[in-house]
Amino acid sequence: MTYFPGISDDQFLRGDIPMTKQEVRVLVLNKAKICPPDIVIDIGAGTGSLSIEAALQAHQGKVYAIERHPEGVELIRRNAIKFGVDNLEVISGIAPAALENIPRADVIFIGGSGGHLQEILAQSNNLLRPNGRLVITAITIETLYEGLHVMQAQPEFTVEAFGMQVTRIKQIKTSNMLQALNPIYIITSTKNN
Amino acid sequence: MTYFPGISDDQFLRGDIPMTKQEVRVLVLNKAKICPPDIVIDIGAGTGSLSIEAALQAHQGKVYAIERHPEGVELIRRNAIKFGVDNLEVISGIAPAALENIPRADVIFIGGSGGHLQEILAQSNNLLRPNGRLVITAITIETLYEGLHVMQAQPEFTVEAFGMQVTRIKQIKTSNMLQALNPIYIITSTKNN
Amino acid sequence: MTYFPGISDDQFLRGDIPMTKQEVRVLVLNKAKICPPDIVIDIGAGTGSLSIEAALQAHQGKVYAIERHPEGVELIRRNAIKFGVDNLEVISGIAPAALENIPRADVIFIGGSGGHLQEILAQSNNLLRPNGRLVITAITIETLYEGLHVMQAQPEFTVEAFGMQVTRIKQIKTSNMLQALNPIYIITSTKNN
Amino acid sequence: MTYFPGISDDQFLRGDIPMTKQEVRVLVLNKAKICPPDIVIDIGAGTGSLSIEAALQAHQGKVYAIERHPEGVELIRRNAIKFGVDNLEVISGIAPAALENIPRADVIFIGGSGGHLQEILAQSNNLLRPNGRLVITAITIETLYEGLHVMQAQPEFTVEAFGMQVTRIKQIKTSNMLQALNPIYIITSTKNN
Repeated sequence: MTYFPGISDDQFLRGDIPMTKQEVRVLVLNKAKICPPDIVIDIGAGTGSLSIEAALQAHQGKVYAIERHPEGVELIRRNAIKFGVDNLEVISGIAPAALENIPRADVIFIGGSGGHLQEILAQSNNLLRPNGRLVITAITIETLYEGLHVMQAQPEFTVEAFGMQVTRIKQIKTSNMLQALNPIYIITSTKNN
Repeated sequence: MTYFPGISDDQFLRGDIPMTKQEVRVLVLNKAKICPPDIVIDIGAGTGSLSIEAALQAHQGKVYAIERHPEGVELIRRNAIKFGVDNLEVISGIAPAALENIPRADVIFIGGSGGHLQEILAQSNNLLRPNGRLVITAITIETLYEGLHVMQAQPEFTVEAFGMQVTRIKQIKTSNMLQALNPIYIITSTKNN
Repeated sequence: MTYFPGISDDQFLRGDIPMTKQEVRVLVLNKAKICPPDIVIDIGAGTGSLSIEAALQAHQGKVYAIERHPEGVELIRRNAIKFGVDNLEVISGIAPAALENIPRADVIFIGGSGGHLQEILAQSNNLLRPNGRLVITAITIETLYEGLHVMQAQPEFTVEAFGMQVTRIKQIKTSNMLQALNPIYIITSTKNN
Repeated sequence: MTYFPGISDDQFLRGDIPMTKQEVRVLVLNKAKICPPDIVIDIGAGTGSLSIEAALQAHQGKVYAIERHPEGVELIRRNAIKFGVDNLEVISGIAPAALENIPRADVIFIGGSGGHLQEILAQSNNLLRPNGRLVITAITIETLYEGLHVMQAQPEFTVEAFGMQVTRIKQIKTSNMLQALNPIYIITSTKNN
């Protein structure tokens, strides 16, 4: 079956770990502009939903998923098996330390920073190839502010950002109810050539 | 202590019943423009949070809270006691039938219709005094659409509507997280003199 | 250069015609799951931004863009030339009448209905192939309500819907300002096999 | 005529100056809990819409409106005359310098900081009486972040914050269109006794 970005949330094994929701994942992947041979790093990979889709898009390349929580690491591995993805390496650890032996990348996702956002961004800059894309998803004011300020201060990056708020419509008998997902901000930084 | 509109959500007894959240309640009350001697009807009163605040504002008047669920009826009564409100009559029943013996009102809130919105709106029109305000809160597409269309078709009403989406900011250690409340639409219809 | 969905808004010629914004276009296209040989119909095509991207995705198929306003028709033609798209036919007219001689389609977009939504939906059902996708974008309560109700009443379709609100972040000197785009609802109906 | 908070936007003279919209003004005023004898300071008063409403609520007290732009100063004065408000003093200048000769206050609004937010907040802390309320409205990520962090770092304040996004519904013939207002965040800090 053909792969289209935006695998339905309920297809992923997820436990109690928060997951990037389908509509958000589609836009985050869209901003990353992943090509088949790309090297991708997903920092704070959570359930791995984004890593899995990145791996399906970078099918001639490789995805490194960094996750600090053992349940997350296990979930990513199980999701990789479920979706038949074999170009995904899960690294159990904390960034930036866990970034040590990873090759230079075309795309870096930052979904969680464990309070080390500034160091991670500095290290990401080193790791990112020319024309590479760094996509930060922010669900806190701190990540939004620091992500914007650190990246906008670097002349070698072009930065754009937006927030999105999704309202799911749930049909219950003859009514269609409005149900909010949490808002999220997406900061995309493209490294100049 | 002085009363200000917008009692904190956690001050109300609420069980498992959905409650109109504080920020929304403030705007709904604001649109109702309740004066001290007003008669107010709250249809689908839920936990009674809106009825209680209406009763505090209409302290020389009276509030009729209509609620179909026995747990709701009980909660409204207990909340009235908690807030020392004695100008609030709880009516256990379903609108429009439960509106039978209620006097003409200055303000009617419609927070729940149990599928009888059109009959309730027709009856509300009869019950509302000149210059009276009818405020509908909609959490479904159906209530929003029917509320707008029924009210906009009545030349004796001036109708305005807006939607609001509140994002609470929750401090967790050194982070401020964004947490969405469900969106809600508010339709205010003012009866011409 | 490789094509990625979500061409920047400022790349399109647009005049004074409202345009589906980039973030919305990405999600609308994503829901449509266009394959290279697909036949696509875009009803109420406006500036053609969605038609152009559909044509780039259905590069072995064909896109029919229906638009009633002459300025829109002209803009779509000029945008097609600008993006080197030659599998896009612009039809100047009003749906459902303008749908007369169009072949059966894999994907139908409805972005504008000129008040004929119900007839357009009835006709679209006939035109859509098994497993076809009908994607309605709604910027009015009426399109949202009618789109949901007509489609949910048809047992041969699976319907899902959500709303999205994008906030663009605009850097002005050292400040990042929040600027809202108008909210939009997207209803996706997939025809059963 | 009785005053109710939330004067309609079109009642204010406004020129090209951005104005706090009606629904937002209602919630900002609600968080400020203004009592009739209160002293209120409105920093970055713009058109004066908030100052005017504060003056109507603090009718035995006084409002100091600080505004740096001459057009704003003029607009506030004209709006004060239009609404018959005589307990409002307009100060043409830039905070924190313009705060020099202002007495201690019960409520301080910060709607604009001209890049001096941290100094203004430090000075506001000195100016605010015990149990006083400081309400910051933020339309930039910088004001939101700095407002939260400066206030949350001060143990003598209790801080709460939320964002709101209003969608106006505009009736055009038989359609109800969705039109977004820009999102705004409101940070309320209450000084402990």
